[in-house]
Amino acid sequence: MRAWEANIRRVVPYVPGEQPRGGNLIKLNTNENPYPPAPGVAEALAQMSVEGLRKYPDPTAHDLVRSLAEYYGVGEDQVFVGVGSDDVIAMSFLTFFNSEKPILFPDISYSFYKVWADLFRIPYETPALDENFCIRGEDYLRENGGIIFPNPNAPTGVLLPLSEVEAIVRGNPDVIVIVDEAYIDFGGVSALKLLERYENLLVVQTFSKSRSMAGMRIGFAIGNPRLIRALNDVKYSYNSYTMNLPSIRAGVAAVKDEAYFKKTTAKIIATRERAKGKLRELGFSFPDSKANFIFAAHESVPGAQLFEDLKKARIYVRHFNGPRLDDYLRITVGSDEEMDALFAFLEEYL
Amino acid sequence: MRAWEANIRRVVPYVPGEQPRGGNLIKLNTNENPYPPAPGVAEALAQMSVEGLRKYPDPTAHDLVRSLAEYYGVGEDQVFVGVGSDDVIAMSFLTFFNSEKPILFPDISYSFYKVWADLFRIPYETPALDENFCIRGEDYLRENGGIIFPNPNAPTGVLLPLSEVEAIVRGNPDVIVIVDEAYIDFGGVSALKLLERYENLLVVQTFSKSRSMAGMRIGFAIGNPRLIRALNDVKYSYNSYTMNLPSIRAGVAAVKDEAYFKKTTAKIIATRERAKGKLRELGFSFPDSKANFIFAAHESVPGAQLFEDLKKARIYVRHFNGPRLDDYLRITVGSDEEMDALFAFLEEYL
Repeated sequence: MRAWEANIRRVVPYVPGEQPRGGNLIKLNTNENPYPPAPGVAEALAQMSVEGLRKYPDPTAHDLVRSLAEYYGVGEDQVFVGVGSDDVIAMSFLTFFNSEKPILFPDISYSFYKVWADLFRIPYETPALDENFCIRGEDYLRENGGIIFPNPNAPTGVLLPLSEVEAIVRGNPDVIVIVDEAYIDFGGVSALKLLERYENLLVVQTFSKSRSMAGMRIGFAIGNPRLIRALNDVKYSYNSYTMNLPSIRAGVAAVKDEAYFKKTTAKIIATRERAKGKLRELGFSFPDSKANFIFAAHESVPGAQLFEDLKKARIYVRHFNGPRLDDYLRITVGSDEEMDALFAFLEEYL
Repeated sequence: MRAWEANIRRVVPYVPGEQPRGGNLIKLNTNENPYPPAPGVAEALAQMSVEGLRKYPDPTAHDLVRSLAEYYGVGEDQVFVGVGSDDVIAMSFLTFFNSEKPILFPDISYSFYKVWADLFRIPYETPALDENFCIRGEDYLRENGGIIFPNPNAPTGVLLPLSEVEAIVRGNPDVIVIVDEAYIDFGGVSALKLLERYENLLVVQTFSKSRSMAGMRIGFAIGNPRLIRALNDVKYSYNSYTMNLPSIRAGVAAVKDEAYFKKTTAKIIATRERAKGKLRELGFSFPDSKANFIFAAHESVPGAQLFEDLKKARIYVRHFNGPRLDDYLRITVGSDEEMDALFAFLEEYL
């Protein structure tokens, strides 16, 4: 080992989900939206001055912040934007989780929480989900340095009712509670409603799922102005200019088209509900999902085997290793056509 | 103070440079390129599938990495890309500067180094530039936890000859030496030539200056594969998908057009040399600049006053407070027309 290697930060490298190439495949493995971005996005990008790229973008991404503030009915000083919700949450870990006490998040949850905690050397504990893959609210009422959980949870899709979210936020007035609502638009009730009453609450959402723009990298947090100011202080100490010009323009256009947003999320919800019935018929069981994916186990075929056999048929879903997860596949809700192709394969296969 | 505020990371908020709005102004304050991006960039963006934005971008940004590897004649495993060189350098601080010993950078230098060190709680020392604003190589041969300096330096524009860069890299085999070459294309010799001989060297460059794309946020690092792997491990632990689809497409197109790149950088160099003569005639003195800006002090008018009076005339330059800096203005080299407007004002004013 070279001497300079001694000072390299040791991390367990996170391996991003497979991004298979080539056509003629059904991609139900990364919870992408099957529908394109709102029509206004293409227009906004076509109208963007490419000449203007020679200049720095607005470091405050003010146009995007204002759009989100108007849409969600909050103050502009309550909105923070970043390069996907991963950027927003990583920045939140760095900003808010500086206690000696462990932060808390569910044992089965978004796998990046553990990665960020390790990266920033934040101690953590992971209370177990109950036997139905539900978060047990009482586990989050012990002493801690901060709390984060997705709602609906990933990869289970299970939604925690707003009253239980509120109990966790209310029970932890001395730490920041982050509710990661990447999938909230597919049938959940957002904790945004609680913001007026709890200044220790931060709600994080993304454009990658319900707004069909994973490729543009836009995420945001909404919270009380003090939290947003603290986040911005850290963000400006890290990288002043993170949102490039296309992101700002496309983001604004996407927020504007509420009708398209509602139509496409409604379609995905309808497809998901139909898929639940079909999967049940085929011998799958799953916790009830309010997200754009279903976390399903088959009564006779092990998860890893089904995953591999689907892949051979060019149908990509996600399989996680680990206790309680092995048996399951996380299946993104695609278009009706994609889901029908999946069901056709399964009917033949099973 | 609320209890939750105790665990918020304390930082001295960095204030980004002024981004004045409205037309009819001459913006020579943020070292932007006066020329638009290469013509291929507009074409690449027009051809980009907006529909494709629904999917995650390639987390490895492979097309962009390959373009850079080909252009600079290095392996693909020697290239790391990020959201501007600020992202690349911040990630490098997090990855490589984990010693108890202080890192070293010049006292007059890119102001973000101190901000990142504070943010990540990295100890640092700042050797003083000599009386001609030059880096003294011998100051960087003492025990340290890592080294970073811009070459040419900012905001002085002074270039350290390659032999002196090499002496610093050679004299510090046990730590990582980062050479921040944001302005190297305006007349310097890149330390890329040293990479074959020194595995502790990391060279960072950006698309924001010489490639006219500050608005797109693209930076990169080139170094030996072990360093790049370590950077990627940390990067994937922070945010897997940072480069959005437009960045990747525009970046590839910009690298392709070498003729345009050479033509526009040559124009800026010619304008800079002409500006040096003119500024001297007007009573300014300055260290010789090899960057796209000139750090100039007038013989009779204090820097702060000149800055304010220029601003009233809608000509924006940069003024830094601090010992040895107060007297100076950092004037970006704009187009010939912009510089002529500046000179016309100064002739009248002085």
